[in-house]
Amino acid sequence: MVVILAVMSLVLLSVVLLTPDESHLLLRSRLTVEDIENKDIKVHDPCVAWLNENEVVLKTREGHILSHDMLSNLTFSLLDNSTLVFTQSFTANYGIYTVASGHFVELTPPEKDTAVLQYAAWGPQGSQLVYVFENDIYYQPDVSSRTMRLSSTGREETVVNGVTDWTYEEEILLTYPALWWSVDGARLAYLTINNSATPLMEIPHFLGGTYPLNILYPYPKAGSNLPSVSLFVVNLYGPAHTVEIIPPEFHGAGDCYISMVNWISSTQLAVRWLNRVQNESVLSVCEATTGACSKKYKMAMDFWQDLQQEVPLFSTDGSVFYLTLPAKQGARGEFRHIASLSTQPAISSASPRILTSGNWDVTSLCALDEENGKIYFLSTEESRQSRHLYSAELEGEFRRHCLTCHLIDHCSFFRVHFSPNLTHFSLYCLGPGVPKVTIHRTADPSSYTLLEDNAQLFVFLEGKRLPENSFQTLTTDNYDLHIKLSLPPGFEGNVHALLVLVDGSPGSQSVTEEFSLDWPEVLSSTSNVALAWLDCRNRVSRPQRSSTLDHRKLDSLRVKDQLAAVEWLMQLPYIDRKRISVYGKAFGGYLSLKMLAATNQLFKCGAAMAPITDFKLYSAAFSERYLGLPEKEEHAYMAASLLEDVPKLKDEQFLLLHGSADAKVHFQHSAELLSRLVKVEANYSLQLYPDEGHALKQEQSIQHLHRTLLHYLQNCLKHDPFLSYLEEEEEEDEDD
Amino acid sequence: MVVILAVMSLVLLSVVLLTPDESHLLLRSRLTVEDIENKDIKVHDPCVAWLNENEVVLKTREGHILSHDMLSNLTFSLLDNSTLVFTQSFTANYGIYTVASGHFVELTPPEKDTAVLQYAAWGPQGSQLVYVFENDIYYQPDVSSRTMRLSSTGREETVVNGVTDWTYEEEILLTYPALWWSVDGARLAYLTINNSATPLMEIPHFLGGTYPLNILYPYPKAGSNLPSVSLFVVNLYGPAHTVEIIPPEFHGAGDCYISMVNWISSTQLAVRWLNRVQNESVLSVCEATTGACSKKYKMAMDFWQDLQQEVPLFSTDGSVFYLTLPAKQGARGEFRHIASLSTQPAISSASPRILTSGNWDVTSLCALDEENGKIYFLSTEESRQSRHLYSAELEGEFRRHCLTCHLIDHCSFFRVHFSPNLTHFSLYCLGPGVPKVTIHRTADPSSYTLLEDNAQLFVFLEGKRLPENSFQTLTTDNYDLHIKLSLPPGFEGNVHALLVLVDGSPGSQSVTEEFSLDWPEVLSSTSNVALAWLDCRNRVSRPQRSSTLDHRKLDSLRVKDQLAAVEWLMQLPYIDRKRISVYGKAFGGYLSLKMLAATNQLFKCGAAMAPITDFKLYSAAFSERYLGLPEKEEHAYMAASLLEDVPKLKDEQFLLLHGSADAKVHFQHSAELLSRLVKVEANYSLQLYPDEGHALKQEQSIQHLHRTLLHYLQNCLKHDPFLSYLEEEEEEDEDD
Repeated sequence: MVVILAVMSLVLLSVVLLTPDESHLLLRSRLTVEDIENKDIKVHDPCVAWLNENEVVLKTREGHILSHDMLSNLTFSLLDNSTLVFTQSFTANYGIYTVASGHFVELTPPEKDTAVLQYAAWGPQGSQLVYVFENDIYYQPDVSSRTMRLSSTGREETVVNGVTDWTYEEEILLTYPALWWSVDGARLAYLTINNSATPLMEIPHFLGGTYPLNILYPYPKAGSNLPSVSLFVVNLYGPAHTVEIIPPEFHGAGDCYISMVNWISSTQLAVRWLNRVQNESVLSVCEATTGACSKKYKMAMDFWQDLQQEVPLFSTDGSVFYLTLPAKQGARGEFRHIASLSTQPAISSASPRILTSGNWDVTSLCALDEENGKIYFLSTEESRQSRHLYSAELEGEFRRHCLTCHLIDHCSFFRVHFSPNLTHFSLYCLGPGVPKVTIHRTADPSSYTLLEDNAQLFVFLEGKRLPENSFQTLTTDNYDLHIKLSLPPGFEGNVHALLVLVDGSPGSQSVTEEFSLDWPEVLSSTSNVALAWLDCRNRVSRPQRSSTLDHRKLDSLRVKDQLAAVEWLMQLPYIDRKRISVYGKAFGGYLSLKMLAATNQLFKCGAAMAPITDFKLYSAAFSERYLGLPEKEEHAYMAASLLEDVPKLKDEQFLLLHGSADAKVHFQHSAELLSRLVKVEANYSLQLYPDEGHALKQEQSIQHLHRTLLHYLQNCLKHDPFLSYLEEEEEEDEDD
Repeated sequence: MVVILAVMSLVLLSVVLLTPDESHLLLRSRLTVEDIENKDIKVHDPCVAWLNENEVVLKTREGHILSHDMLSNLTFSLLDNSTLVFTQSFTANYGIYTVASGHFVELTPPEKDTAVLQYAAWGPQGSQLVYVFENDIYYQPDVSSRTMRLSSTGREETVVNGVTDWTYEEEILLTYPALWWSVDGARLAYLTINNSATPLMEIPHFLGGTYPLNILYPYPKAGSNLPSVSLFVVNLYGPAHTVEIIPPEFHGAGDCYISMVNWISSTQLAVRWLNRVQNESVLSVCEATTGACSKKYKMAMDFWQDLQQEVPLFSTDGSVFYLTLPAKQGARGEFRHIASLSTQPAISSASPRILTSGNWDVTSLCALDEENGKIYFLSTEESRQSRHLYSAELEGEFRRHCLTCHLIDHCSFFRVHFSPNLTHFSLYCLGPGVPKVTIHRTADPSSYTLLEDNAQLFVFLEGKRLPENSFQTLTTDNYDLHIKLSLPPGFEGNVHALLVLVDGSPGSQSVTEEFSLDWPEVLSSTSNVALAWLDCRNRVSRPQRSSTLDHRKLDSLRVKDQLAAVEWLMQLPYIDRKRISVYGKAFGGYLSLKMLAATNQLFKCGAAMAPITDFKLYSAAFSERYLGLPEKEEHAYMAASLLEDVPKLKDEQFLLLHGSADAKVHFQHSAELLSRLVKVEANYSLQLYPDEGHALKQEQSIQHLHRTLLHYLQNCLKHDPFLSYLEEEEEEDEDD
């Protein structure tokens, strides 16, 4: 007993002795998981929208709907605390609220007293409106007039009009509505998406009933039948008359997607068509009156996924349009720059005129000001991790001017929405400081109106120990890897465990100055863990000649890139190379587990949420863009599959998390992985969220997820003086 | 560094010093998990069946089919190494093998070249045979003759003839075939089970395909529509003629079950009918020619579930029959004894004559020998945990004689099968020693033929450190609790962790002398953990007056009984009361978690496999027998639900395991539990076996289950000298 007592005392003593002096940080408290769940200090998105040239509508943190007038600087209340839902697709009861009278009527289809609608929206003229009910589109010339039914092909689970199906919402258009008003409100373009040949996926739902009720929906997996899509334009003035837009012929016949629709004038539409494997696109101008299209620009696409949805900016007369294209910048490869093209000549003679140049990317086109000869856009010119608003002149030397550089303290990553005539713009500052929303006059951006500054969050964070970000670029093998490293304050005097956060999906960028306050920041603050985000080689962020990149090998290159960055991080003096962990979700979950499989206990542990484990089981639109058609690329699918790597995961320690009703990465992915892990007796932990989807919805599930990840990683990454000592001993022995 | 080194050495030293002297046990090695998975030493069931008075057929360990002749003592090979499947229900291709010629033909329905049959069996005369194909019954008078179709009502997923549906197989008949030959082979009785009004349950299957394929089958949950059952008799000699047996009226109209069918003569059948909640049964004798039945014995049943399937023994002339009934034995309550009844008088005047008496149970009727005036049965007369074969005289003093007592060393738990004319019986010795199968002459049981002695297993176990069993009875509150305690050898000088193995389903008995060698014995042998099995108060094993037992409260009484036994065990000097754990499956999983919820960290941890969490989600036949109809017994269902107890599980540590395709206790049970555990942030671990059922099928899954349980329990129950020391310190402080 005395012996044990003595030992215990010595152990405790040595632990105390080994804990480094952190007294200088004690004035600030650590960030807790309860902090990030506190609604009062959550970043608030006011969902600012332009009503007209001088007025915006916005939602307050409390849920009130307000309008704000720039000229008078007055704010009016439109609607109190209404319950609005902000997810992508949903059904709801819609009502029309007359602001002047306070009168509220429910919007319902003919002969219905109440109805759940899929979508409803105002048109550009007066109070004209459309809504989608039971997969068909309905139109009202004004609030009180009779309803006209515009489509009749809607079929439950198979044919939808005016809204997207799963594939278009999640992979192609990335929006729920699939209808577009002409500027004058005289015509409405809409998609008809027909899934009658698409296999149905069944999602088990376990909870709440005596017998579980499963949900069926069309979900094309790699190689299976795709939804067929048609674009229609319906004439709203006078007798309804519908014209089908005829797709241009390209890349032979076969399946195609429509990834962008936009009106150029009251009778002309710009439409982008994609072939099935999405390596070729055609931008065409179509006549709404006849349905005829002419090809304007054809390009190979590879991984520039966000280019698919880019809306080109057209001149008022429709003769010229602007878009972004990859442009070679000397030895450093291709970057994305603004190009102008004429709509007049045939496609063969179209030669783009490049307006911008430099070793940086134009990430988004914002507005075209023909009157003043300017185009507005966001770019990475200031730094790769920033997004600033620039204007460029359309002629001469294309002089550029940064509108947001040094405009607002701690703000260098922006999102912008211009007013209809470009006299104002709303500016979302997304980081690196606490997010803010402001409104600026385009002529003089320096004076502005503040709509939201998340002041409570700002004050709260003043008293917290938060990690500090730094950005690094590694140059290896002729390409760059970008790293964002988040270190606990006072990191120099200490060694830290490291958590690598993996996204890595093709076309994504994780290394940015965006503000974030989530469970990784809690882990960093409470447990002194360093955080790292990595961007793999990627044409969007750091271009390569497309011939040098076989995208069939992208997954192994991505793993290689991530590991190269991890090895560099391990050499940093303040990183403990024995305590490194990795986390990712979906494609990031896939990469995380691939990284564990590619190494031998380099990582102390890992965590993967809803990982893709086999691209054959994943969405056709994604898998085929990435790997091609499975019947042609059997080997590539095999090589990319995580299921083949399971024996290499045997001795790795990791946590697997999945919502059982995940409609994007089906639980099937984890089930296939689990059944193989069981066979090799791998060392994993499992957390299943019954009836939860890809994004957890129930607040309690989210809280549980935070705590599960924090607890698992804290436990895995904790400094164990005994273990460290034993390992050091071992190494010394080896050195001898 | 020096300090750490010193500390480490002291810690290691103290651990060594504290490990007790076990040198006297070192000659024997510990049982490992690989041992119990070793096919060579698995207990082999030779599936002995009587061919005629002097011949049995059996399967060797290698899979050969042999016949053995008692008179000549010669063995003949019938079939080599055929692959036979031995589960309950299955479909298979059946073949007919002519032993003399070695000729093999596949058994197929008319106009089919090959077919998967649901069942096939010989009749009693010549080579007559029946089979079930696509839910209908087919008959062949002999191997080469034309097939006759006997039923035509079979419908996929809804109506089956001649075999059982889920409910009858798992809950009522407990066999797959649902057809019975009359002794002369002239008639066949069969059940038609109609599930067209039963709700379908859908089981997700995740593995193997691009799109998961779910499986639908009728599964009546508590309160939902039951299968309707009809009994038919078809005349096989001459033109096929089918008579429906008319159920007797009892307990008003409504749903009922048929739980036993047995031919008494070539034209009379004994049939037992049960009402929906299974607290009342009617035994009737039915005329196969007219379908008319007369009630012979009506009884209230409560929890004597195995009485439902008991086949009464009828005299040849059908005038008298024997069955077991509860009989009051003085102050010690009711025990199950043999009764004889006459079939002649009307049911109201039937008064059973009791043949046996004493404070023990007749557990099974084996055979009736009218010629010698004897009845053979198994009973617990020698000890509650044993099963010996006895004979009793039918007249006079009903003198009893034990045929198996002291017959074979280390054998006191038997199963018996008599030859057709009772001259021989095969004897399965199931424990406590290594199982054996022998054949005995009824007239002189002491000389016997050995068919299987699992010699390799016997030799193997000679060199192993195995736990030693002892039996205890606690008398509390006027009833007895029975405990089987398995202690590591040399237990006296040591304190041991304890694992309580919970079954506890109504009517079951865990405290027996049956041989078992599974993961709990490995845990005991490798980690010196004591094992305990407990029998709750239960009318089968230790009767109570039925008025004192409200079976609506049985779950809480069961929990109370189990906990009373645990508390008694905790007081034993060689049990460490800080290291107690509990495991159970299905109903046992339910009870285990109820026990965790009812206590406050009494158990260091628990493990539950496929637990029932809510009886509303479980099989109607089980739940209603146990709790009544949910619409009438809402409160009882609520009180029994584990889901209501989840907040009390918050601070308990446990492992939850479930096969995702469990067709008996649906994964839905664990999903409902998990979703609530997530909400209270409970401290559980989860293991999901994708596409595995209630009993894991894949060998690798079973191995994974063994290792997962062993690892979890070893880790939880391991002796932590630091922790123990701290806890003792704490208590001493408290004592001060």
